[in-house]
Amino acid sequence: MRVVVPFDARDPNTRLDPVLDADERRGFARAMLADVLAALRGADRDLDVRVLATAPVGVESDTDADVTVDDRPLTPAVNAALAATEEPVAVVMADLPLVTPKAVEGLLDPEPHGADDPGEAAGVVLAPGLGGGTNAVLARHPGFRVDYHGVSYRDHREAAAEVGATVRTVDSFRLALDVDDPADLAEVLLHSEGKAAAWLREAGFAISTGDGRMRVERG
Amino acid sequence: MRVVVPFDARDPNTRLDPVLDADERRGFARAMLADVLAALRGADRDLDVRVLATAPVGVESDTDADVTVDDRPLTPAVNAALAATEEPVAVVMADLPLVTPKAVEGLLDPEPHGADDPGEAAGVVLAPGLGGGTNAVLARHPGFRVDYHGVSYRDHREAAAEVGATVRTVDSFRLALDVDDPADLAEVLLHSEGKAAAWLREAGFAISTGDGRMRVERG
Repeated sequence: MRVVVPFDARDPNTRLDPVLDADERRGFARAMLADVLAALRGADRDLDVRVLATAPVGVESDTDADVTVDDRPLTPAVNAALAATEEPVAVVMADLPLVTPKAVEGLLDPEPHGADDPGEAAGVVLAPGLGGGTNAVLARHPGFRVDYHGVSYRDHREAAAEVGATVRTVDSFRLALDVDDPADLAEVLLHSEGKAAAWLREAGFAISTGDGRMRVERG
Repeated sequence: MRVVVPFDARDPNTRLDPVLDADERRGFARAMLADVLAALRGADRDLDVRVLATAPVGVESDTDADVTVDDRPLTPAVNAALAATEEPVAVVMADLPLVTPKAVEGLLDPEPHGADDPGEAAGVVLAPGLGGGTNAVLARHPGFRVDYHGVSYRDHREAAAEVGATVRTVDSFRLALDVDDPADLAEVLLHSEGKAAAWLREAGFAISTGDGRMRVERG
């Protein structure tokens, strides 16, 4: 199955600007991408993984991922990738450093164990992100298109209904946690041993609980 | 299996104070409790559910839940419940309005499908909450005790190791989302059709995306 991983190689994770400068944000984004590619590689599936980057970017040779450059915004770039084939396509965001092979398998399973409706495989599988986003999609229905603006999880449910596709939602904290604000960095340090977490520790970040709430501080 | 649901009947969800007054917070907390009890009742398990409340509280007669009053703080009250039996005890927080029967089953399953280690059942199962908390625990090891202060997910892993209990972590967005800040109310409106979501709609709350980020506004 084809898996597309959109990646902003130019100015990623701008909401981390209060704690990381532009070069650091690019380095940290690369570490998160490596974690996502490692989770895809570790999943027990035969996957054709393609990084869909806004600018040329090298990926580590052991990732088994090709890079396609498309400098359009996220939504038209992903929709071009969906339109390029009638086969199922998964789209997994690059800023999900908690994702594991098992979480990937939960997204791609045609009939996951314990599904409420264990019948026909859903036409569209959605993994919601915190804040109303859509962190991963499996589009089996060839007519499904994405729109990442706004509360995209709600919009994607409606878009699936419009093309007559059934929807399954994946219940995964590891897929739901996209790195957006500085507070999310604490979740990475707490729940991951991957490259993004190592990058943060190397950059001096640690979990702080000074005021009773979990945050990060930079030493 | 015994399931304990701690519930603050006096002054719940104080961080919602900017958007809900004290009476409203009590009403909304009751709605969230009803959702959690409904999810437990709907799970395909034989459960002995006990609400562990800080003050007398009635629960709806169709919930099959008894109420025990213990006015101590959360940690000693839960530890007394754990110490009361050698049998496994689950502890599920009352402010998890997204929880479903399936998510409950994922917590209670002795050997969930796709587990990394499908061998012996873990001595302690933890469902992390956003922000470092622990939203649900299944304590099979009779020596395990909780401490909800600080980054309790990390502390509970250490506490399990100290008593020689293996740990399994549940990957569930629906268990991870506890209602803490006003921003969490938008997640309830987006991802639940339960009583808490209905309470919010009745109180005039709706999802807002004015500045591009999902929030709630009250009409």
